[in-house]
Amino acid sequence: MKKRPAQHIIPGMPPGIIIPSDSAQHPRGVDLLTYSADAVDERPGLAVDDALAAIRAVTQAPATPPQVLWLNVSGLADAQLLKKIGEALTLHPLAMEDVVSLRQRPRVDNYDSHLYIPLKILQQDDNALTFNQLSIFLLNNLVVTFQEQTGDVLDAVRLRIRHGSGRIRQMGADYLMYSIIDTVIDNYFPCLEQINDLMEALEEKIIRNQAHKDSIEYIHRLKRDIQEVRRAIWPLRDAIGALYRDELPNVSKAIRPFLRDCQDHAILLFDSIENCREFANSLMDIYLSTLSNRMNEIMKVLTIISTIFIPLTFIAGIYGMNFATMPELQWRWGYATCLALMAICAAVMIGLFKHVGWLDFKQKTTITRKKRLPHQHAIAILENWLKQNK
Amino acid sequence: MKKRPAQHIIPGMPPGIIIPSDSAQHPRGVDLLTYSADAVDERPGLAVDDALAAIRAVTQAPATPPQVLWLNVSGLADAQLLKKIGEALTLHPLAMEDVVSLRQRPRVDNYDSHLYIPLKILQQDDNALTFNQLSIFLLNNLVVTFQEQTGDVLDAVRLRIRHGSGRIRQMGADYLMYSIIDTVIDNYFPCLEQINDLMEALEEKIIRNQAHKDSIEYIHRLKRDIQEVRRAIWPLRDAIGALYRDELPNVSKAIRPFLRDCQDHAILLFDSIENCREFANSLMDIYLSTLSNRMNEIMKVLTIISTIFIPLTFIAGIYGMNFATMPELQWRWGYATCLALMAICAAVMIGLFKHVGWLDFKQKTTITRKKRLPHQHAIAILENWLKQNK
Amino acid sequence: MKKRPAQHIIPGMPPGIIIPSDSAQHPRGVDLLTYSADAVDERPGLAVDDALAAIRAVTQAPATPPQVLWLNVSGLADAQLLKKIGEALTLHPLAMEDVVSLRQRPRVDNYDSHLYIPLKILQQDDNALTFNQLSIFLLNNLVVTFQEQTGDVLDAVRLRIRHGSGRIRQMGADYLMYSIIDTVIDNYFPCLEQINDLMEALEEKIIRNQAHKDSIEYIHRLKRDIQEVRRAIWPLRDAIGALYRDELPNVSKAIRPFLRDCQDHAILLFDSIENCREFANSLMDIYLSTLSNRMNEIMKVLTIISTIFIPLTFIAGIYGMNFATMPELQWRWGYATCLALMAICAAVMIGLFKHVGWLDFKQKTTITRKKRLPHQHAIAILENWLKQNK
Amino acid sequence: MKKRPAQHIIPGMPPGIIIPSDSAQHPRGVDLLTYSADAVDERPGLAVDDALAAIRAVTQAPATPPQVLWLNVSGLADAQLLKKIGEALTLHPLAMEDVVSLRQRPRVDNYDSHLYIPLKILQQDDNALTFNQLSIFLLNNLVVTFQEQTGDVLDAVRLRIRHGSGRIRQMGADYLMYSIIDTVIDNYFPCLEQINDLMEALEEKIIRNQAHKDSIEYIHRLKRDIQEVRRAIWPLRDAIGALYRDELPNVSKAIRPFLRDCQDHAILLFDSIENCREFANSLMDIYLSTLSNRMNEIMKVLTIISTIFIPLTFIAGIYGMNFATMPELQWRWGYATCLALMAICAAVMIGLFKHVGWLDFKQKTTITRKKRLPHQHAIAILENWLKQNK
Amino acid sequence: MKKRPAQHIIPGMPPGIIIPSDSAQHPRGVDLLTYSADAVDERPGLAVDDALAAIRAVTQAPATPPQVLWLNVSGLADAQLLKKIGEALTLHPLAMEDVVSLRQRPRVDNYDSHLYIPLKILQQDDNALTFNQLSIFLLNNLVVTFQEQTGDVLDAVRLRIRHGSGRIRQMGADYLMYSIIDTVIDNYFPCLEQINDLMEALEEKIIRNQAHKDSIEYIHRLKRDIQEVRRAIWPLRDAIGALYRDELPNVSKAIRPFLRDCQDHAILLFDSIENCREFANSLMDIYLSTLSNRMNEIMKVLTIISTIFIPLTFIAGIYGMNFATMPELQWRWGYATCLALMAICAAVMIGLFKHVGWLDFKQKTTITRKKRLPHQHAIAILENWLKQNK
Ligand SMILES: [Mg+2]
Ligand SMILES: [Mg+2]
Ligand SMILES: [Mg+2]
Ligand SMILES: [Mg+2]
Ligand SMILES: [Mg+2]
Ligand SMILES: [Mg+2]
Ligand SMILES: [Mg+2]
Ligand SMILES: [Mg+2]
Ligand SMILES: [Mg+2]
Ligand SMILES: [Mg+2]
Ligand SMILES: [Mg+2]
Ligand SMILES: [Mg+2]
Ligand SMILES: [Mg+2]
Ligand SMILES: [Mg+2]
Ligand SMILES: [Mg+2]
Ligand SMILES: [Mg+2]
Ligand SMILES: [Mg+2]
Ligand SMILES: [Mg+2]
Ligand SMILES: [Mg+2]
Ligand SMILES: [Mg+2]
Ligand SMILES: [Mg+2]
Ligand SMILES: [Mg+2]
Ligand SMILES: [Mg+2]
Ligand SMILES: [Mg+2]
Ligand SMILES: [Mg+2]
Ligand SMILES: [Mg+2]
Ligand SMILES: [Mg+2]
Ligand SMILES: [Mg+2]
Ligand SMILES: [Mg+2]
Ligand SMILES: [Mg+2]
Ligand SMILES: [Mg+2]
Repeated sequence: MKKRPAQHIIPGMPPGIIIPSDSAQHPRGVDLLTYSADAVDERPGLAVDDALAAIRAVTQAPATPPQVLWLNVSGLADAQLLKKIGEALTLHPLAMEDVVSLRQRPRVDNYDSHLYIPLKILQQDDNALTFNQLSIFLLNNLVVTFQEQTGDVLDAVRLRIRHGSGRIRQMGADYLMYSIIDTVIDNYFPCLEQINDLMEALEEKIIRNQAHKDSIEYIHRLKRDIQEVRRAIWPLRDAIGALYRDELPNVSKAIRPFLRDCQDHAILLFDSIENCREFANSLMDIYLSTLSNRMNEIMKVLTIISTIFIPLTFIAGIYGMNFATMPELQWRWGYATCLALMAICAAVMIGLFKHVGWLDFKQKTTITRKKRLPHQHAIAILENWLKQNK
Repeated sequence: MKKRPAQHIIPGMPPGIIIPSDSAQHPRGVDLLTYSADAVDERPGLAVDDALAAIRAVTQAPATPPQVLWLNVSGLADAQLLKKIGEALTLHPLAMEDVVSLRQRPRVDNYDSHLYIPLKILQQDDNALTFNQLSIFLLNNLVVTFQEQTGDVLDAVRLRIRHGSGRIRQMGADYLMYSIIDTVIDNYFPCLEQINDLMEALEEKIIRNQAHKDSIEYIHRLKRDIQEVRRAIWPLRDAIGALYRDELPNVSKAIRPFLRDCQDHAILLFDSIENCREFANSLMDIYLSTLSNRMNEIMKVLTIISTIFIPLTFIAGIYGMNFATMPELQWRWGYATCLALMAICAAVMIGLFKHVGWLDFKQKTTITRKKRLPHQHAIAILENWLKQNK
Repeated sequence: MKKRPAQHIIPGMPPGIIIPSDSAQHPRGVDLLTYSADAVDERPGLAVDDALAAIRAVTQAPATPPQVLWLNVSGLADAQLLKKIGEALTLHPLAMEDVVSLRQRPRVDNYDSHLYIPLKILQQDDNALTFNQLSIFLLNNLVVTFQEQTGDVLDAVRLRIRHGSGRIRQMGADYLMYSIIDTVIDNYFPCLEQINDLMEALEEKIIRNQAHKDSIEYIHRLKRDIQEVRRAIWPLRDAIGALYRDELPNVSKAIRPFLRDCQDHAILLFDSIENCREFANSLMDIYLSTLSNRMNEIMKVLTIISTIFIPLTFIAGIYGMNFATMPELQWRWGYATCLALMAICAAVMIGLFKHVGWLDFKQKTTITRKKRLPHQHAIAILENWLKQNK
Repeated sequence: MKKRPAQHIIPGMPPGIIIPSDSAQHPRGVDLLTYSADAVDERPGLAVDDALAAIRAVTQAPATPPQVLWLNVSGLADAQLLKKIGEALTLHPLAMEDVVSLRQRPRVDNYDSHLYIPLKILQQDDNALTFNQLSIFLLNNLVVTFQEQTGDVLDAVRLRIRHGSGRIRQMGADYLMYSIIDTVIDNYFPCLEQINDLMEALEEKIIRNQAHKDSIEYIHRLKRDIQEVRRAIWPLRDAIGALYRDELPNVSKAIRPFLRDCQDHAILLFDSIENCREFANSLMDIYLSTLSNRMNEIMKVLTIISTIFIPLTFIAGIYGMNFATMPELQWRWGYATCLALMAICAAVMIGLFKHVGWLDFKQKTTITRKKRLPHQHAIAILENWLKQNK
Repeated sequence: MKKRPAQHIIPGMPPGIIIPSDSAQHPRGVDLLTYSADAVDERPGLAVDDALAAIRAVTQAPATPPQVLWLNVSGLADAQLLKKIGEALTLHPLAMEDVVSLRQRPRVDNYDSHLYIPLKILQQDDNALTFNQLSIFLLNNLVVTFQEQTGDVLDAVRLRIRHGSGRIRQMGADYLMYSIIDTVIDNYFPCLEQINDLMEALEEKIIRNQAHKDSIEYIHRLKRDIQEVRRAIWPLRDAIGALYRDELPNVSKAIRPFLRDCQDHAILLFDSIENCREFANSLMDIYLSTLSNRMNEIMKVLTIISTIFIPLTFIAGIYGMNFATMPELQWRWGYATCLALMAICAAVMIGLFKHVGWLDFKQKTTITRKKRLPHQHAIAILENWLKQNK
């Protein structure tokens, strides 16, 4: 996971103050999208005052069919702009403070006149995963979104509004909010698949004995990524559950089945990330046992070589001694006998090693599977019983 | 567990769209089974329009005794067919989307006019376990099932309907739903027994020291299988509990004891899979301690050989030196004395090794069991007490 | 734990079918015990029809004082006998199916007219622990028990009924049920003590360094036994809690304190088995550290021997070279100097090893305990304070 | 923890029977303490009949100001005495059975006319910790306590009654019960501190590398002690919570804040023991890594010595060969060249070892701490902000 | 974490007694701060009687706009001063006892007329973290705080009152309490960041192989710090939740959103500390695998050197033997042949080592990342689908 420059929390600061992080992106205007069942009006890169005026116009003179507004801001560096929007739409200062504070836990905050829903968009950048904090405000006929960085994840929702097929144009601002949340959640799946791919590649390496000592570091980095993603996913289930179970302002009953479906995906995500976690732990275990196995093999090589040659060298040492009287040295076949003795010695050692299996470096554990109660069997028992109990 | 080709979730797709997976099986018609207390009509491989017409006929003109209908589709590749069924029977689009999405968590979704219950059938194929996703819809007098692949697990239910003994023909569509769920759950037991068999075989190998370095990989694969099966079993308890505790549409009180029994089997399954999990962890521990034990033995061999021969070789080295004045070399019994000295040296070493137990490679830990408070004893104490307190 | 031959669950079988396991024991008649405050009538080994007739007689013509009946069947092989009893006493078919199915989780099933309570009797056979499944049915004035095997655990209850002291003869069938459950639960204690004895014996061995490489297998078997016993104990607390908290048929308020006491013993059992589990895990840890310690000692021996002799052998090697001009070889005291050099070399090495503590194989860690705030101290402080604050 | 001789539970025994353990202490009379706001009467070592008569007198003729009675029995060997007290004060037989059964889990049992509260007093004996089971009965104006052994922990309560300052003499029997429970709970703190001291001493040893192979056994014993103390502490929170939340007989609302304070100490105790547990686990980890580190050092020594001398010995071996034609042997500076070659060889090896850091046995990991956002900094930021937003 | 001298709990002490710890700091007077919407009056280092008189004056004659009082005491050594304040403001004796007892778990105690809220201020001293216990009492228009040590964490709140911008001067004593709690909680963030920095520095060292055997001790100390901080953070969530959910005296509804925001930070803190914990565990794992890896490398060096030279030395040993008849010794090219044989021998060995990869000490595991379902892809699929379903 790419590291964001740390954003300090200043202890003692009064609540509700908007302090953008030093590395925050500057927004290029705001994007206003107005749609109803039969028309769409997209105005990207608008000046903030124009956008607020347009919103005020729609709110004061509601059209038929009813119009839905979506105000989007990408980049959180401009405190004045944010303050202006917050005050114009009477968004709660505590919520506006959270918009620029990049550590929000996904949740639903009910401020009576509006809901505040911070989420984390998980994006795949070139080499690493990054989080892009998304703040959703749901008002009566208006959805306001603030994104940490310009991102293209919500393009799909815009596309669907533009094309106008399906439900999205027929329904209210709450359905728009659902569509955004749904897209953000579903966007986690390809990222989790990528983490899984990496772990399977590493598993392959470790099992084929091609993993080196940087593997542990690799697993460690993966575990930390998984842990961060897990923290973003874990609160989603309860947050979405609160959205469809509690009686919240601006959320109609009609979108409950959709939110339940969305929660289901959140649970699936949590299952997947738990799976990744167990996979990573298991990889660690295999890798560590690989180390032990290698040590065993290294020691076996050393022991075999030493155990064969040390006694031979000893024999050679004996007949290298310079005692005046060493009858064997004078024997005609003394040298040949000595060599033969050495050969026998080595052969016995090798035989022993073969016996205890140390010379066999590529053994496989063979286990035969036996199918338990095959289906045909079970059906036959049942049929037999049915005949007898007619 | 055999791996399914991944099925991508497309972030941003509108809800309720049926997108079959690329590797989905093509259905060969649909199977319609109509039965009442006194008649059965099986029509496999029917065209979908004929089947829907037949269903409409029965629904519009209910017969006496009441008829139950079971519509089964095997293979999820034909989006048009699924859409047609979904619309004709007014099944909820979100549920129909889940039918073809192969990651459903087992649960009960109440759509007021019908229930949607996704399950995983666990099948033993030649060499591996596979999941076959089953979607059950319960309507008033109709059960609709969609299977990912043609499977024979539900044959037992068909057989029982055909034979007509027992309760199944006397009762309604909810009992049919129960029978299907019960069969799917009970079908896990032989699979879990097979996993257990494999682990016991591996345990045997490891304890008899016949396991090689691929064991860790073997255990790792087993653990991942267990983990996947566990995820399919874990939500069953709550799902079935919801079926018999909540007041759900189309589920009569008469089948509650049957569902409770079914839940009991689901709890048993979870106990078994937890057991497998702990077994697998324990196997890992034994295997790793086996590695340590082997290393100990290898090092003991090396140490024994080295410790005996290194001093001897040193002695031989001394008398191989070429100093002009080395009196021992000229002694008559010099050579013999030297050999004797070496022999004593080796004997002392071997004696020491025997003393610390290093030469004894096959020791057993003996522990004597003592029975605590045998039954006769307890009865005698009780009888004695009863006599005294008459 | 002795292994029972596996009993297959046949997926698809209709519910409520009695299929005894292949290895089930054949019952030798049934045992009927009738008692009231002033009389006991024991009729062991009765024919089933006679027993049912006797029960019917008592139920149709209730005597004063009221009579309690206990029907016991030991051995579950005779499906006809079980079916006859089930039908005569209108026991629920699902419960009768569970009677012969040997994997029941302890629990209380309420079938309105009667309760069904499956339990596991833990017995100490010659060498191993075994489970004996006990099914208890509580009807109005009748307790029916089915045992997997002839067992003597319930003899204590019969003895108490026979002797007639205490409450048992004064109270109803619910007190008989309580007495049976209480006896079954208390019977776990000696078994757990035996497991504990075994672990303490093994602990002793491991700490005294007398454990060999089969220890890990031993611990593994103990852990699996503990796991199985734990699974039998774990649901007891809730089951007995349900018995005394819920308003169940045939259970009077008078026996509630007794059931609460019984539940307390079940909690105690669970505490004990948890303790065993942690003990077993701890044993594993000590054993593994023992392996590491041994390896350390083996390597120390090898290193000491090698490090002393390798340099000496090198020196001997130098003076074994055949260079034409090696002045030392001609010195008068050359040989003696060389030997002295070797001795110094060895002494330095041994000194170094002594310095780093490698030659001290039996060191003990000494830690001095200091009593914290002894009682007299605390009392003195208190007394002092009381005097000052009179 | 000192081991108590096992106390067998006899399966099948009727409930409510008082069977003292074989090793139980004999009581020396009973201690009766009567007090009111203005008088105290202590009568230690009284005969049981006299005590019961005195209690009966007070109960039948209540004085003004109201009197509180405290009856204490130390030693549980005399079943007759216990039975007499139980019957005279109508204490429930199940509770009286628990008084002598030494495995009671701390809890509150409500028997309508009285409460039964078993606790464990943790005492520091010479060398070990021991449990002393305390049973408290709370009746209307009477507290009865039974202690397993004569102990001095409750002396503090007696002292406070005697001195008469504070609340204790002004309030009822429930405040006496609270004072006893509070004293028992606070008495755990010095014991836990002692356990902590031991662990810190051991930590010191392990980190200074002065721990030997008995350390693992030491940690294991500590963990088992911690586990036993934890089991005694764990249920306290709920037990005391029940005392002040439930409407229990004989417990007035006035003592609720005191009980809440007491529960707070119980939670603190649980926190401390959890801390001890994690500390012990951590010690195990450090100790095991110490073993690995030692092995690394041993092997480094062996490898350094071997790697330096084995090539040198080989060179010496070459020039020890007896080939007829070996020109170097005849060179004038042959021997010197050979020695120089050896010296270079050794120097290169030592240089390599230095390069990879193997010769540096006492390295320290140095990490520089950098203070994050110092307080002055944060205040300056705040002040600056306040000025700008005046 | 810097260690505080232990503060003994004296078992048996009556409740509500103020016993300062021996090492407690002496207070330099008390600080009284009185403010309303339009005025601030700061009087640091006041005599306690003057402060109490001032408080009494304000309480008896409430001004308009209403005044809020903040009484602060830094240093807990003066029992008389504390007693005087407690009695004058009728603070509960049990709460006053807790003020000087330095082990309070963060929580909210409701004493009807006032709330008692103990917290831990986490401070970064020169080298270590320290806890500074803060006790907050909330009365009607008065907040009383007691600090263990003079600290500057609350300066930020004073500064905000002095400057008078923002809400703090407009609102009541409950908002002051909130501001204090908020500041204390936010003050944890820089400390946690420092812990994180340390762990990242250590991670760097371990991965770069620059960590030595004191690392394990380092990690152990970090884990114990984390554990202590975790215990201070863990109860915050519930404590603050109780403050804003329960109907507590002196807490108005207006500050609920602020308290909810504060709780959110407490949850974030808990998430961070959990993260630290997992990080520390992971560091331990990497470090231990580093040890195994090093051992592998050490052994590889030893094995390579031994395996190459032991056979060569053996060959040299053979031709060093003194047999009378050894034809090779007389050959013209005997010596050269022997040297060549040795070279071949060594080359073969080195070749084998190269083949199994033992000579390659710096291998890297290479894994190629493949992006799963890139965004453009997903959008294309969606657009395509939208076109087809227009
Ligand atoms: Mg999950
Ligand atoms: Mg899961
Ligand atoms: Mg799940
Ligand atoms: Mg999990
Ligand atoms: Mg899981
Ligand atoms: Mg692990
Ligand atoms: Mg493991
Ligand atoms: Mg379970
Ligand atoms: Mg279980
Ligand atoms: Mg379980
Ligand atoms: Mg379990
Ligand atoms: Mg483990
Ligand atoms: Mg269970
Ligand atoms: Mg427990
Ligand atoms: Mg426990
Ligand atoms: Mg436990
Ligand atoms: Mg462990
Ligand atoms: Mg307990
Ligand atoms: Mg416990
Ligand atoms: Mg706690
Ligand atoms: Mg805690
Ligand atoms: Mg804790
Ligand atoms: Mg805890
Ligand atoms: Mg551990
Ligand atoms: Mg706590
Ligand atoms: Mg958390
Ligand atoms: Mg969280
Ligand atoms: Mg978390
Ligand atoms: Mg976490
Ligand atoms: Mg967490
Ligand atoms: Mg670990």
